[in-house]
Amino acid sequence: MGSAEDVVVANKKVLLKHFIAGGAPKETDMELVTTGTIRLRVPEGSTALILKNLYLSCDPYMRLRMTKHEEASYVDDFVPGKPIAGFGVGKVVDSSHPDFKIGDYAWGMTGWEEYSLITDPKLLFKIHHTEVPLSYYTGILGMPGLTAYAGFYDICSPKKGERIFISAASGAVGQLVGQFAKQLGCYVVGSAGSDEKVNLLKTKFGFDEAFNYKKEPDMTKTLKRYFPDGIDIYFENVGGSMLEAVLYNMRLKGRIAACGMISQYNLEIPEGVRNLFLIIGKRIRMEGFLVFDHYGSYLEFEEKVVQLIKEEKIKYVEDIVEGLENAPVALVGLFEGRNVGKQLVAVTHE
Amino acid sequence: MGSAEDVVVANKKVLLKHFIAGGAPKETDMELVTTGTIRLRVPEGSTALILKNLYLSCDPYMRLRMTKHEEASYVDDFVPGKPIAGFGVGKVVDSSHPDFKIGDYAWGMTGWEEYSLITDPKLLFKIHHTEVPLSYYTGILGMPGLTAYAGFYDICSPKKGERIFISAASGAVGQLVGQFAKQLGCYVVGSAGSDEKVNLLKTKFGFDEAFNYKKEPDMTKTLKRYFPDGIDIYFENVGGSMLEAVLYNMRLKGRIAACGMISQYNLEIPEGVRNLFLIIGKRIRMEGFLVFDHYGSYLEFEEKVVQLIKEEKIKYVEDIVEGLENAPVALVGLFEGRNVGKQLVAVTHE
Repeated sequence: MGSAEDVVVANKKVLLKHFIAGGAPKETDMELVTTGTIRLRVPEGSTALILKNLYLSCDPYMRLRMTKHEEASYVDDFVPGKPIAGFGVGKVVDSSHPDFKIGDYAWGMTGWEEYSLITDPKLLFKIHHTEVPLSYYTGILGMPGLTAYAGFYDICSPKKGERIFISAASGAVGQLVGQFAKQLGCYVVGSAGSDEKVNLLKTKFGFDEAFNYKKEPDMTKTLKRYFPDGIDIYFENVGGSMLEAVLYNMRLKGRIAACGMISQYNLEIPEGVRNLFLIIGKRIRMEGFLVFDHYGSYLEFEEKVVQLIKEEKIKYVEDIVEGLENAPVALVGLFEGRNVGKQLVAVTHE
Repeated sequence: MGSAEDVVVANKKVLLKHFIAGGAPKETDMELVTTGTIRLRVPEGSTALILKNLYLSCDPYMRLRMTKHEEASYVDDFVPGKPIAGFGVGKVVDSSHPDFKIGDYAWGMTGWEEYSLITDPKLLFKIHHTEVPLSYYTGILGMPGLTAYAGFYDICSPKKGERIFISAASGAVGQLVGQFAKQLGCYVVGSAGSDEKVNLLKTKFGFDEAFNYKKEPDMTKTLKRYFPDGIDIYFENVGGSMLEAVLYNMRLKGRIAACGMISQYNLEIPEGVRNLFLIIGKRIRMEGFLVFDHYGSYLEFEEKVVQLIKEEKIKYVEDIVEGLENAPVALVGLFEGRNVGKQLVAVTHE
């Protein structure tokens, strides 16, 4: 802290109480603990830093971490009794790491608590633009933004005029993929789970078409209606029966960027996809990707998208709940589709 | 014919009697007709040719053509009452096409009959090497060979030392993929449906390991045994539950070349694959391909593989039935896994 005196402060936390098996997460799977404290000073001889958490991100992949995996998944399971971990934005209040100084802002992996001791700052990125809302670094300028950017440009191999379908399109990633695709001159259709979201896709994000999947009894036919000549690119966020319907509607040499499968995360036995043989005749490429592999592009991405935001060439919608104590309800709501736009939690506005 | 006289000869045929829905094809779905004749002369003003069929190929994709499709698949449905169509090797007995002269040998799409009038010779390739068995042009030097070559080198992105699993490995395509992979320095494991085939894979084709899938009650565990560190490349010929077991065993950034899904072709409701979410975390690329897209590589392929055959650097096993009248039983046997090696029919040895 630059001061010889230690400062010990209260530190509210949201813990995972226990692992959950199948089913949707509930608020009671988490617990707010208000009795903790933290010493706002990094341990001697460490390269740690202490982050004052401002914004915490609720992302679909977090569901995976709430279940115990016998075989490691691509992210570690949460630890019951410890704070939920996730992406967030914070201010550095102490640091012995050469890349971060007190007063810097950073985004990356942090904890669901007021202050976090970050012992491994390689999972943090310094924030270079404080003239845009800092909360954007949980979304459009953070992990979901880079996911959309890398997924669209690197995995989809998009070309002008191609037809792209995006599921969960009003979410943090989908809304950006659609806008990148429009900028390239694609025909863009998105699905979402409420009329409000559909309206947002069409009026705010400039999608050519959008529909409420809950109102469509036969998804194969629905997609045929929106894509009479088929789909070139599918940006996959939901999985299961949606993927099956998409496969029936894909064009020759189509590409599927598999970003997430949120419809499957709460199921103990996931839905089977029965028409994978279509990828042969249609010569479809389906490719899974994770944003972690694309962190090397972050600086280029940050500059490019900050510019687009400043020029108002890209729109972004957030769904912010206030207060750490409301973080569990926000996360639960994500899996019920309650959020409209990027779901995040404001711990404090500083 | 170079002669002014027309020659009309008998022309036995094997017809598709009727479309079949689900289930395995039966001999009674086809019919031998011995009463037909053909004039061995191409129509005036055509660019057709007449092929004396020597060898006819039985290939898994033919099952698709026996079922009526409301939406076109990647190959046309057969026409009930007309000869089965398929790849074959023949001798040109008349031609008005500039690329083929009488006496040439060719392989490509022909009919299940003694002589075929080929009105569209763009589906035929001239045979440049008659010093190897002509029957090889139904397999190692024909469509399956090019399938193995293009699938392995173009779709699998293989690297020396990688671990590859091949299903239906003793078939026309699988046996070659395995040998290409061994030549590159990969670790190669194949599955097949009998001990005889497994033995062939290990002793003749030089696979590192092979197993009889019918004796393995838990395929996920079986694959774990053969690939304790996981699978880099899966050459997919069977689909369904095998694919599911493979996905559990794939390594990060693994590749799946989807060549065929023979286990699914006879099912009215294909099996669902329930663990596709794994392609995200593991960043798997799964890509379907068809040999038709790779015909441009054929000449290069033919020269390379003829050389390998002459140098005995590649092994090849055929399962030949004699006589057009036995073609139906050969095709039916293919779907029961009765063949050992490439299944073909010798109509005549000339």
